[in-house]
Amino acid sequence: MIAATNIVWHDSAVSKQQRRDQAKHTSCIVWFTGLSGSGKSTLSVALEQYLFERNYRVYRLDGDNIRHGLNSDLGFSAADRTENIRRIGEVAKLLVDSGTIAMTAFISPYQADRDLVRAMVEPGEFIEVYVECSLATCEQRDTKGLYAKARAGTIPEFTGISAPYEAPIAPDITINTERQTVEPALAELVHQLQQRGVLRAA
Amino acid sequence: MIAATNIVWHDSAVSKQQRRDQAKHTSCIVWFTGLSGSGKSTLSVALEQYLFERNYRVYRLDGDNIRHGLNSDLGFSAADRTENIRRIGEVAKLLVDSGTIAMTAFISPYQADRDLVRAMVEPGEFIEVYVECSLATCEQRDTKGLYAKARAGTIPEFTGISAPYEAPIAPDITINTERQTVEPALAELVHQLQQRGVLRAA
Repeated sequence: MIAATNIVWHDSAVSKQQRRDQAKHTSCIVWFTGLSGSGKSTLSVALEQYLFERNYRVYRLDGDNIRHGLNSDLGFSAADRTENIRRIGEVAKLLVDSGTIAMTAFISPYQADRDLVRAMVEPGEFIEVYVECSLATCEQRDTKGLYAKARAGTIPEFTGISAPYEAPIAPDITINTERQTVEPALAELVHQLQQRGVLRAA
Repeated sequence: MIAATNIVWHDSAVSKQQRRDQAKHTSCIVWFTGLSGSGKSTLSVALEQYLFERNYRVYRLDGDNIRHGLNSDLGFSAADRTENIRRIGEVAKLLVDSGTIAMTAFISPYQADRDLVRAMVEPGEFIEVYVECSLATCEQRDTKGLYAKARAGTIPEFTGISAPYEAPIAPDITINTERQTVEPALAELVHQLQQRGVLRAA
């Protein structure tokens, strides 16, 4: 046994506010939604880098770290998509509680599912970012070759082709990736997050 | 649209190592296991406070933030307990990836479930802490009155009474809470974590 000379015990958990104070910024969910190929992943990776370099605590949830891990038991039916988004929301909420800016980059096609996540957290903690790009342009880009497969019928229930995408009714932020490249899109997003007080002024 | 004068875009995600460098400590899962009433929660809360005050990034998963959130759809059958632990493991893994020391305080009665989480992460990233306390003492403490209810049969499948608890075969750390109070127990735990290089030397 080790002498407990410098150990003082507190019987209380660390609060979200204490964590935010330590991080020196607020925490929230920056929820990207948009069609496959709209630029959610690119934009969220760019924002993550930008914030990380400025000493923000930031973490991004995406298909790579969620679909192969936490949600590896889920498919792409409407019910599974809803459960997928619910769990992502719950994890993002834990990240917010830990003092981290959580970013999520999922198609998240249903308004009701996104609203469910918004309702999980406190007002102002959920920022819905609509990554706006026409289906025609997304299909033309077809960065992962998924639209071709969806058209050929080899991928069922593909959002925009054989499954619906519900554009946000009242997104907190809209970033159009059809009319601008990544760097101005990122600059616009950063500016909007500063306006909302999520990020410190430049 | 905002001028992109000071925005430079990197097309690469932030790595776990970059996050650890920023946090100035390594990240891992400190997985507490033990009977109800053994002191998992008390010890993990104490460790969280201790680390937070020393500027570690640390976050604790427990019944309060998991059972009512991410795992609100799960019950207490063997299958649901396994899924409960699997999801907690996946979330803890994400926290590790984010550069955070993740602590989990769940009975987690099955060796196989704990081994499953160990296998999710890299060698050395999973630290199994056995919070050792005899069933007799836990039942005597009965802080939440759960043992009384379990004996009365009003709580089914209660670990130690009507469901098994598999003590760790080879825990990384064992902390006995029967022979010592919280402060020396915490001191011993901190010392062991320092020995393993998880925490900076005092």
